[in-house]
Amino acid sequence: MVKIDKLLINYKTLEAFKHFREYGHQELFMLEELQSNMIENNSESPFYGIYYGDSLVARMCLYKVDKKYDAYFDPPQDYMELWKVEVLPNYRGRGYGRALVNYAKSFQLPIKTNPRINSHQFWNKMGFQKAHYDMERDLGENPLIWLPEGVKEKTHDK
Amino acid sequence: MVKIDKLLINYKTLEAFKHFREYGHQELFMLEELQSNMIENNSESPFYGIYYGDSLVARMCLYKVDKKYDAYFDPPQDYMELWKVEVLPNYRGRGYGRALVNYAKSFQLPIKTNPRINSHQFWNKMGFQKAHYDMERDLGENPLIWLPEGVKEKTHDK
Repeated sequence: MVKIDKLLINYKTLEAFKHFREYGHQELFMLEELQSNMIENNSESPFYGIYYGDSLVARMCLYKVDKKYDAYFDPPQDYMELWKVEVLPNYRGRGYGRALVNYAKSFQLPIKTNPRINSHQFWNKMGFQKAHYDMERDLGENPLIWLPEGVKEKTHDK
Repeated sequence: MVKIDKLLINYKTLEAFKHFREYGHQELFMLEELQSNMIENNSESPFYGIYYGDSLVARMCLYKVDKKYDAYFDPPQDYMELWKVEVLPNYRGRGYGRALVNYAKSFQLPIKTNPRINSHQFWNKMGFQKAHYDMERDLGENPLIWLPEGVKEKTHDK
């Protein structure tokens, strides 16, 4: 059984994040906030991770989007936005990615993600499907969605 | 002087798109629309490209976002969303990427893009800057913006 930890923002976590490929504005912003005391050490974050011993070896971000911003599901409802799902190269093939995504599913809300190209086999195995592409909504994204029982994708034809 | 062409959607263009790394839902969607006659051959598209002889060797997508959806600029205004800026590997170093982005700037509207990691040097050279990260707006994105004279970034502190 793989343990998923909610990650708190501190220098140790932010240092560990540098090992991940999808290190970007979000991490830099957190670092600046911590350095300038705009957030406290050990503040809450949208990050969840898996530790192997003392090392962070997998992580994801998960954020609940309010139904008033929902453009993907029918009827409009709260859903989880999932991003930065990543397992460090030496720790792949152990089910860590699957464990993270299953954790995201455990909220029993629909999920939307915009994965990197070349990971579609993984998302397909996890039960995600392509959202019907809508250019004005999806500009530059490749959205995938996961529907819990009873939830439908929003359609544009109705 | 590099010539930028507005690309029309047809089977030849869609075949050429397969050589680009950022081939995704948008291209597949266009292919399906063409195959099912939902769009006509040679329909308008948001794609612009550069040909070398008969080969498409660079491309980008450019879409004007209405000011009512603007969350990046002050005051809210129409802006250009830019994505899929890509030059095929054998044609890099010839200024094609720069020519595409300069074309995008020629509309004299602010530009927002969400580039891949590792291309920041290019965007910096092109005068783009990091938008101040706002998690609820930018979930999983690394937004960069370009400001024409007189346009300011929207700030959250005011």
